[in-house]
Amino acid sequence: MTATALISLNSPYHFWQFSDRHAELLRTAFPSVRLRLVEEKDIPFEIPTADVYFGWSFDTDWLSIPTRLGWAATPSAGVDHWPVDALDAAGITLTRGYGYHGQPMAEHAIGLLLGFSRGLFESRRLQTRSVWWKDDLADSFFDLYGQTLTIVGCGSVGVRLAEVAQAFGMHVIGIRRRLPRPGPGGIEWVPADRVREVLPRSRAVVNLLPSTHETRGFFGETTFKACSPGAVFINLGRASTVDHDALLAALDSGRLAAAALDVQPHRPPALDDPLRHHPRIVLTPKSAVFSHAYMDRAVAFFRDNLRLFLAGQHLIGVVTPTHGDPHAPH
Amino acid sequence: MTATALISLNSPYHFWQFSDRHAELLRTAFPSVRLRLVEEKDIPFEIPTADVYFGWSFDTDWLSIPTRLGWAATPSAGVDHWPVDALDAAGITLTRGYGYHGQPMAEHAIGLLLGFSRGLFESRRLQTRSVWWKDDLADSFFDLYGQTLTIVGCGSVGVRLAEVAQAFGMHVIGIRRRLPRPGPGGIEWVPADRVREVLPRSRAVVNLLPSTHETRGFFGETTFKACSPGAVFINLGRASTVDHDALLAALDSGRLAAAALDVQPHRPPALDDPLRHHPRIVLTPKSAVFSHAYMDRAVAFFRDNLRLFLAGQHLIGVVTPTHGDPHAPH
Repeated sequence: MTATALISLNSPYHFWQFSDRHAELLRTAFPSVRLRLVEEKDIPFEIPTADVYFGWSFDTDWLSIPTRLGWAATPSAGVDHWPVDALDAAGITLTRGYGYHGQPMAEHAIGLLLGFSRGLFESRRLQTRSVWWKDDLADSFFDLYGQTLTIVGCGSVGVRLAEVAQAFGMHVIGIRRRLPRPGPGGIEWVPADRVREVLPRSRAVVNLLPSTHETRGFFGETTFKACSPGAVFINLGRASTVDHDALLAALDSGRLAAAALDVQPHRPPALDDPLRHHPRIVLTPKSAVFSHAYMDRAVAFFRDNLRLFLAGQHLIGVVTPTHGDPHAPH
Repeated sequence: MTATALISLNSPYHFWQFSDRHAELLRTAFPSVRLRLVEEKDIPFEIPTADVYFGWSFDTDWLSIPTRLGWAATPSAGVDHWPVDALDAAGITLTRGYGYHGQPMAEHAIGLLLGFSRGLFESRRLQTRSVWWKDDLADSFFDLYGQTLTIVGCGSVGVRLAEVAQAFGMHVIGIRRRLPRPGPGGIEWVPADRVREVLPRSRAVVNLLPSTHETRGFFGETTFKACSPGAVFINLGRASTVDHDALLAALDSGRLAAAALDVQPHRPPALDDPLRHHPRIVLTPKSAVFSHAYMDRAVAFFRDNLRLFLAGQHLIGVVTPTHGDPHAPH
């Protein structure tokens, strides 16, 4: 079977940019597939003759253009900005990528956690200012070894994070809406409706929840109040899943020792946003999935799926609207 | 056999303090051993009747006091402040601790490395200042996965660090004066005189060298010039093993991307010490071995050794002056 694959994957960052090298790799693997590499503005002109679309986003308007499009793929793990229902209604299969976000996100999460647990952010701040700051750190550091990390929204990213955390000697609790059977080894699996039972024994909480109707404000006042005093909260999921006023209150009451947010309600946050200025909050600019291997691995994932598509087989990473939730489980 | 054990292990930090709980543990394990817990100032009065000494340091003057002391133990990994030759000449066995420094030092080293590789220190600095700093991080971050970490002075601490680094997908090179046979799995072992051959392919270098005649200024101009451009240098060993002028030059030439120093030539460094103010240096206040489990594990190590001592067997962790080097291999 031959096909036309429309690819629009531009980025200011080379590691998120579909390059000539990637095109060459696909052309070699699929000599009969016609590749069309286009800017986003030209997509409407190309949609009519495309069988496959591979891009960062999808404009609902494109669905009004007559097309034979059967499959839309994104390298992203999250699809909350995709018109999932409309694509489903149009009979277009949507796939998201997975398996390659876990590594950089695990590095990012552990780096943030150790930045707090070893007093590294505090050390960096104090090294120019005070005579000797050893006592400050001695009062506030903690060992990762033997502590519990709870990963909320523990899909493939969380499982990779769990592997690394376990190498440090941490106990890992994985929270999911639906528990995997059988679950990956070594993780204590707990369903999402019982999260408050395990928070009191969690020194660190990493939030990887996707943005859905169900997850909105998941981390609110009652959830933060269930946290262990001195816990560290890290959000690499979506900002909509956190009530940031409740987060600030939990920090100021001493319930949380520190928080790191790779996602924020406003991007960029206003210069006077309290999230920027809280002494125990570290912000990162949605850089948790920065990885020099990103597009190589995303293209390899797409290549495997394209092979299945051309053979008329089931695709990997299909996003299906389920349980009134427009998004696939994370 | 009965014996008197003189213990002087005070610290301003509870996790480095020998507590009543530790004394109780030893009394239960060795009902016939007389424990003397004393302040350092009272040691001269206790030395005459002591068989065993367990402390942070040893004053050479104490050797002029008639004693039956046969064994001096320290929880520390490094013994560069101990009178190794004088103890040896006096026929007193010296043991250092090992096996429990690796975990906190691995957490510290990986935390510092990820702080640089994920742009976390930079992010913390920029989050209050600029509108959006994503581009800054995109230019400078790197993945740990697939990169090479070289550990110089790779003893038991280095082997634990290697395990954690390998969990991130790093390749680990272990540098030792004498290579272990057989070496712990997964590490590429290289003798110290060939370090410059492997530095060009090392993205990160962690220095764990002890302070000896041989290691003084090990990291000097030629060693830093052999480093891969953009490498990160982390010193958790001893300050004497690094030429800090050469380090600053390597940072300013762009050879090194960043450095973290848990030890500094002057402690505390002067307020105008350039090591405090370089934008790509992070200092920590000799906090790499901060661990809440420290004294529990040090006492467990001492307990095992005391059992051997009372049975007249060989002790673990014996420090022997060898090769003109007053200290045991690290």
